[in-house]
Amino acid sequence: MAHSTLLPGVDSTQTQPTWQSVAGMIDHTLLKPEATQVQVIHLCEEAVAYNFACAFVHQTWAALAVSIVRGSGVKVGVPAGFPQGASLTSVKRFEAEEALRIGVSEVDMVLNIGALKSGDRNLVQSDISGVAQVVHDNGGILKVILETSLLTLDEKLVACQLAVAAGADFVKTSTGFAGGGATVDDIALMRGVVGERLGVKASGGVRIAADALAMIQAGANRIGTSAGVAIVRDLGAPLITEPVHVSGY
Amino acid sequence: MAHSTLLPGVDSTQTQPTWQSVAGMIDHTLLKPEATQVQVIHLCEEAVAYNFACAFVHQTWAALAVSIVRGSGVKVGVPAGFPQGASLTSVKRFEAEEALRIGVSEVDMVLNIGALKSGDRNLVQSDISGVAQVVHDNGGILKVILETSLLTLDEKLVACQLAVAAGADFVKTSTGFAGGGATVDDIALMRGVVGERLGVKASGGVRIAADALAMIQAGANRIGTSAGVAIVRDLGAPLITEPVHVSGY
Repeated sequence: MAHSTLLPGVDSTQTQPTWQSVAGMIDHTLLKPEATQVQVIHLCEEAVAYNFACAFVHQTWAALAVSIVRGSGVKVGVPAGFPQGASLTSVKRFEAEEALRIGVSEVDMVLNIGALKSGDRNLVQSDISGVAQVVHDNGGILKVILETSLLTLDEKLVACQLAVAAGADFVKTSTGFAGGGATVDDIALMRGVVGERLGVKASGGVRIAADALAMIQAGANRIGTSAGVAIVRDLGAPLITEPVHVSGY
Repeated sequence: MAHSTLLPGVDSTQTQPTWQSVAGMIDHTLLKPEATQVQVIHLCEEAVAYNFACAFVHQTWAALAVSIVRGSGVKVGVPAGFPQGASLTSVKRFEAEEALRIGVSEVDMVLNIGALKSGDRNLVQSDISGVAQVVHDNGGILKVILETSLLTLDEKLVACQLAVAAGADFVKTSTGFAGGGATVDDIALMRGVVGERLGVKASGGVRIAADALAMIQAGANRIGTSAGVAIVRDLGAPLITEPVHVSGY
């Protein structure tokens, strides 16, 4: 480590952020439907070892993940209405409530893509605000996945505006399951619309450090990726080979 | 129509089923997340025109679909825990309850694939039986999607056994969103395990009449496809060009 500080945060003497500051922006993610318990445990242990922002897993693994990261600064995140966004608002709210009850801190919901494409902005906004209400009432953070690869430029703009109006905390590019992922152009556009009011999460196809840095440079302050360890290792993080058992799990 | 009868049901004087009998096995399906209201209306009108078994749409369109098919013999089906199966049982139950309350008759849930691969058969079974209870209490039909493309041969066998034990009404091959779809071999295997106790639904990649007939020959008694009109047209159905407005929608 050539950096003058080991504290997380962008090192102002360098153009490249420290690995710790990048780690603090990463949602360490495993959302393959066929992911096993062993893989989820491993993911959560890595999240603690490298101090990632979140261990991001499916709802069925949320209680397990919460038990593993307990006592570390790492949060657990889950998706809702994932990955198609076409469930009822009541269902997305219930998903969020159940997750927060278990100890999850962050919920990434997919917006109602079909409603957006049908011109029903009221439904898109009320869908988001309905979930935002339950998430915020329970002290959580709500990210809204636009699924940019399915949207036109106008739809991306409108989606960002509706997410702001609905009280979301982040806009996010992609689920990773609809073809296409985060692009620098989309991140810049999203940051341009939301300004400093919301966070911007780049997700889908972010696999190497150069990708992550480009997204951050374009305005992302959160990165969703399954390659978090490789990314921070590329930026100088040590290899942590032993599993870390934080809780009594 | 060269057949001696126009009534639905397999014509015993022919080796090939009538188009009507095939139509009566088709879940006419539109699950693209970007599907619009106009496309959903069109799908439902086609389902009524050709007397398909179900109009199969996302939850967000369920109320609309129910309003369109009302008065016809066509049912509305929706997915739950779709397409990854990794949500909580409580969420899948809530999704089913909400859908049935709206007037949906059939619910296709994705089993907990990660739990199956982690050896947690109890969770897989209780997940299905929990949803089956709500669905049956409300007079509905429950199909269980195995997502065969992600499973080993042993996992497919176990999944069918658990679906039987849990009281499901159908086993079903695929979501159509995980790569791979229905195969004749999988249908034969599934029918072999469930016998006459459950139905078998072939879904994913069934695009032409020959596919559908091969699936039926192998043991399927329901076909999930977005190509229902092309399939029954291939089997002799007339072209119905005018939209059919059944209800006052």
